[in-house]
Amino acid sequence: MKQMNIKALARELNLSVSTISKALRDSYEISESTKQRVMQLAEKLNYKPNPYASSLRGKKSRNIGVVIPEVADSFFSLAINGIESIVKEKGYHVLICLTHEDFESEQAILKEFQSGRVDGVLMSVSSETDAGGHIHELIEQDVPIVLFDRVLKEVPAARVITDDMESGYKATKHLIDNGCRRVAFLGLSKKLSISNDRLKGYEKAMHEYGWRIGKKDVVTCTTDQQQNIRAVKKLLQQPNRPDGIVASVEKLAPVVYQACNEESLRIPQDVKVVCFSNLEIAAMLHPSLTTITQPAYEMGQKAAAMLMRLLDKKPVQTADMEVIIPSKLVRRGSTSI
Amino acid sequence: MKQMNIKALARELNLSVSTISKALRDSYEISESTKQRVMQLAEKLNYKPNPYASSLRGKKSRNIGVVIPEVADSFFSLAINGIESIVKEKGYHVLICLTHEDFESEQAILKEFQSGRVDGVLMSVSSETDAGGHIHELIEQDVPIVLFDRVLKEVPAARVITDDMESGYKATKHLIDNGCRRVAFLGLSKKLSISNDRLKGYEKAMHEYGWRIGKKDVVTCTTDQQQNIRAVKKLLQQPNRPDGIVASVEKLAPVVYQACNEESLRIPQDVKVVCFSNLEIAAMLHPSLTTITQPAYEMGQKAAAMLMRLLDKKPVQTADMEVIIPSKLVRRGSTSI
Repeated sequence: MKQMNIKALARELNLSVSTISKALRDSYEISESTKQRVMQLAEKLNYKPNPYASSLRGKKSRNIGVVIPEVADSFFSLAINGIESIVKEKGYHVLICLTHEDFESEQAILKEFQSGRVDGVLMSVSSETDAGGHIHELIEQDVPIVLFDRVLKEVPAARVITDDMESGYKATKHLIDNGCRRVAFLGLSKKLSISNDRLKGYEKAMHEYGWRIGKKDVVTCTTDQQQNIRAVKKLLQQPNRPDGIVASVEKLAPVVYQACNEESLRIPQDVKVVCFSNLEIAAMLHPSLTTITQPAYEMGQKAAAMLMRLLDKKPVQTADMEVIIPSKLVRRGSTSI
Repeated sequence: MKQMNIKALARELNLSVSTISKALRDSYEISESTKQRVMQLAEKLNYKPNPYASSLRGKKSRNIGVVIPEVADSFFSLAINGIESIVKEKGYHVLICLTHEDFESEQAILKEFQSGRVDGVLMSVSSETDAGGHIHELIEQDVPIVLFDRVLKEVPAARVITDDMESGYKATKHLIDNGCRRVAFLGLSKKLSISNDRLKGYEKAMHEYGWRIGKKDVVTCTTDQQQNIRAVKKLLQQPNRPDGIVASVEKLAPVVYQACNEESLRIPQDVKVVCFSNLEIAAMLHPSLTTITQPAYEMGQKAAAMLMRLLDKKPVQTADMEVIIPSKLVRRGSTSI
């Protein structure tokens, strides 16, 4: 059966389209008996108001767009759960769109979102994103947006982040405290705020303790895992190779373990490893993995709550536009002495 | 700036709304010079055709809805990548909606999808889904749907599945061949096709080899991981406890490892384990995990390709409505002799 439309309802009941429309909106202009006739037939014929038509009449979509690079990272799956726990209570649906770390895809998705498909957006930018024109445009079209985790510093949007520089510092200091002298850093992209902040924390710790950062000790990884394994192996093949590694994203955990294995280097005896990760299975790795664990669920919740405030047009103080929730270091076997 | 609408464009250019509309659709009724004036102003004022209005005029949304229980399972993140690799080429956006294993949420999402927000749907049903009325309704509204992995057998929708019964059999036989005499099975829900088929394969292997299935050896797990750990610990506390476990979903891997650890049972010496999983990190677990690995990416691709055919209204043979792609057993440390 094709979808029933309002014109067919009108024909069937011998009423005008405008009367049907008003009856469906429960208008005071229409008698109770007419409303009942309309409702009964609408139900019988499985009529559903076209959301596009409703939207033209000024109704909201009741959709929240969540734009993220990927779902394979457990940070994002936990953050989504946090987001849904908040917005579902308010009667919103969540539509998740993936950028696969591609700036053009991210722009296309926000463009698509400009025209009323969603009422608000929660976003973590791609590793290729280095300009915020698309975010500005969305805000100008009156679609509120809250950035979480991966933000663009120069865009004046509300944001929920974690203490990335502090966490990079903590991870590196932990390795130095446990005896590492040459620590390497694996980042994702020079354009990415979280990667840069974690790198700054790493540099700060290395300088503070007076350890030199070798030219090849800061590695920029890609979306290609095989290429990443080759890059880490190369790092470990150096004559005076690193004895500690800070891996700044979760998907680098299997990369580092495999590279060490292929180079016959033992973790933690030969190389100690800290990885930013929310993996539930980190404790069951061989050896168990020391992690910087982000408050992913809580970050999703806070970002969603902030968006709900913006949608309610409630005043938000400038000081409340940025929320920072600290990550924590979980010590496990991969850094033990 | 509020979104520019077609009426404002008409006012600005002193033309009728219908002329503007025709010019924007490149109608032959409008002169080239008028079209140029309209296009230039539309661009300058950042006018975007309202997708809801376009849809009323019969245009498609160019969205594909992907409805899945969760994203924390790597099967789904890989399947999504497979789906996107196909539909993006055809100019579609993917909107992902999560049911969190809740039947009511799944019904609400499909209801929402009935009214033109998406052109087609790819779905893996929730573990609570035991009736297909919502799927029937969607099909009746002319929104094509393809089920993948978790299907409902009685719903005559196109589907892409793996050989679940065969895989359950293979996993169990592998444990028996490696010396197990009392194998337990961890399932997700009695309503779920994949869980039941994997269970049937397990039963077939046990019967074939003449091993008895204890009353408490088939455990139905829930979405609560702590509860699952307690259930597996209870299983292992039996006087004549199982010496092999088939875990039928990925998220049970950390559950089994932790339960064995808390019960001071060594894998594989005391208990051997096979888990259905696409985890990249399975090889780095302690011990490395023997898995039944599903062709997740390929299943996503096949399901998406099938949906593209249905959207193109190309004839599909009944025999082509069901595609079965085999999974494979990857032998690792958790089942070694």
